[in-house]
Amino acid sequence: MKLLAFAKRASMTFSCCLRPVLSTTIRSSSSSSSSSDSVKWEGGVSMVQGASRGIGLEFVKQLLQNSEKGHVIATCRKPNEALGLLSLKNMFAERLSILPLDATNESTIEASAKSIRDRYGFLNLLVNASGILSIPDVLQPETTLLKVEKSSLLLTYEVNAVGPILVIKHMWPLLKAGGGTGTDRDVAVVANISARVGSIGDNRLGGWHSYRSSKAALNQLTKTVSVEFARRKDPVICILLHPGTVDTDLSKPFQRNVPEGKLFTKEYSVQKLLGIIDHAKIQDNGKFFAWDGQEIPW
Amino acid sequence: MKLLAFAKRASMTFSCCLRPVLSTTIRSSSSSSSSSDSVKWEGGVSMVQGASRGIGLEFVKQLLQNSEKGHVIATCRKPNEALGLLSLKNMFAERLSILPLDATNESTIEASAKSIRDRYGFLNLLVNASGILSIPDVLQPETTLLKVEKSSLLLTYEVNAVGPILVIKHMWPLLKAGGGTGTDRDVAVVANISARVGSIGDNRLGGWHSYRSSKAALNQLTKTVSVEFARRKDPVICILLHPGTVDTDLSKPFQRNVPEGKLFTKEYSVQKLLGIIDHAKIQDNGKFFAWDGQEIPW
Ligand SMILES: NC(=O)c1ccc[n+]([C@@H]2O[C@H](COP(=O)([O-])OP(=O)(O)OC[C@H]3O[C@@H](n4cnc5c(N)ncnc54)[C@H](OP(=O)(O)O)[C@@H]3O)[C@@H](O)[C@H]2O)c1
Ligand SMILES: NC(=O)c1ccc[n+]([C@@H]2O[C@H](COP(=O)([O-])OP(=O)(O)OC[C@H]3O[C@@H](n4cnc5c(N)ncnc54)[C@H](OP(=O)(O)O)[C@@H]3O)[C@@H](O)[C@H]2O)c1
Repeated sequence: MKLLAFAKRASMTFSCCLRPVLSTTIRSSSSSSSSSDSVKWEGGVSMVQGASRGIGLEFVKQLLQNSEKGHVIATCRKPNEALGLLSLKNMFAERLSILPLDATNESTIEASAKSIRDRYGFLNLLVNASGILSIPDVLQPETTLLKVEKSSLLLTYEVNAVGPILVIKHMWPLLKAGGGTGTDRDVAVVANISARVGSIGDNRLGGWHSYRSSKAALNQLTKTVSVEFARRKDPVICILLHPGTVDTDLSKPFQRNVPEGKLFTKEYSVQKLLGIIDHAKIQDNGKFFAWDGQEIPW
Repeated sequence: MKLLAFAKRASMTFSCCLRPVLSTTIRSSSSSSSSSDSVKWEGGVSMVQGASRGIGLEFVKQLLQNSEKGHVIATCRKPNEALGLLSLKNMFAERLSILPLDATNESTIEASAKSIRDRYGFLNLLVNASGILSIPDVLQPETTLLKVEKSSLLLTYEVNAVGPILVIKHMWPLLKAGGGTGTDRDVAVVANISARVGSIGDNRLGGWHSYRSSKAALNQLTKTVSVEFARRKDPVICILLHPGTVDTDLSKPFQRNVPEGKLFTKEYSVQKLLGIIDHAKIQDNGKFFAWDGQEIPW
């Protein structure tokens, strides 16, 4: 019953946003702010979720550096401890907003959506970069079925698959409002950072059950969402991206076996991924691309 | 730390069973029973998990009816309320054992494994048939992203993806001990009942986020396990099966749009699925088949 009540509440909350807003002027529409002034946000408004470190932080940096006007909302669990973001804030001031968001806590996602709506009124790009593979003393990628634990499967699924989908759910009205306006793109883009090891067809090594399963699930959820966006003719597409093996905290414990030249810097990987995002077309909706633009089998 | 301790305990528990037992005589080896008598279990030992109703119950029935000697272990959450199983027990007596197992409760899985080891010593077939799509007042398949709830995603994942994998984890030593002995098969078979809507590549309609995601995850987990079985040269293969749209409680609320002639009886579907299982070869390990033997894309 609780669920049903929530579903009704949710659809009420969103129904006001269901009309596609395809206007080509960049503006802020704030339903809750008392001011009726329209603010111009030039150069597009991008959100990077999971931006405290690694690939997410690098997305924020390049999005700010690559244009003179684009606005970026960076979300992370603990803004006060996100030193990389705080130092970008010093350099880019008003062009960067930092908001608290924990992908496992839906109320923080809703609060971010409200905050973005009030300040910007729309989004043109959402990058879901948050993700976990291992956490000392809590989560280890499984080397064998014997080590598969329910708690690891559920935690990894919650962070890597459920989190990004709930973020899309709450940002959807803002993405529809944004479309491609203020950018060189035709449509708003949702880029979920997946991983090649999430590919079932490409799974030749086994192991890493929790992580593989969560990324396959993220792929399925993203595909499912992309079908609905297309059916509704929303000016929004979803793509899945594999960044390559990138030198970040996540890959650190597992870099030993990476072949020479196959461990990318964050800078290189994100440059490639932004290239894919910037050239993404409506026909790319629901597809899964590697850093080099090659499609990855499911 | 707790996880680590468990992993160590788990690998100790299983290490005694790691040597492949490929003997062609059918016998029971009970490590914990005080009797050293060897019991002959002719015709193979099959386990059907999620056997109270629907496709699972039909598997139990056909496995018992199709041979004169095969033994079947049927597990379900509430044996006392499983009327279909109880009536089969009346007919097949010693050839059918009914054990309590809730796929969301690992201790019941472990208890079943112990019970099977003590009584039979091995398994030749494991069918994971349990699964949920909707539960009145608790879980509804989502018709839109707006209705996606974390609780539904997690519950469906736990039952449909995590449960079957934990069952395989605990039955693995028994499956290795069994291989194909006492059956016409070369190897023991794990058949996980998935669903075509779990296919990412075949997802053209969207919706049913929780169910689709859980089945895609089940596919990835099964593939991952199959890779390890092959690497270890265990006499066990894993396959994924789509039963078609079958007239059971699960499909009941959604049968309106099923085209004429496309709603199968349980009897027909399980007959086809047993045909696939009985002809499964080592090369089929890790594959996903529909009821008609066609491979389904990931
Ligand atoms: N690095 C690679 O080789 C590689 C390869 C394939 C795919 N990927 C994927 O790329 C993405 C980024 O990974 P990375 O390499 O940059 O990893 P990373 O350096 O470990 O960064 C992970 C990020 O996720 C955030 N995060 C974790 N749990 C979160 C939660 N509950 N809510 C919000 N944020 C959370 C972390 O925030 P905190 O600082 O708060 O922990 C951090 O910002 C991940 O999805 C990963 O699976 C990486
Ligand atoms: N019917 C179809 O059209 C169709 C199509 C594609 C795939 N499938 C798949 O086929 C499988 C069997 O479905 P069905 O149609 O036979 O459904 P069903 O008639 O609803 O039976 C579902 C079975 O799963 C059991 N179950 C549910 N939760 C469980 C748990 N936590 N632990 C152990 N058992 C649990 C139920 O036991 P209780 O009696 O205790 O609830 C019941 O025996 C499922 O995996 C389903 O996803 C069905």
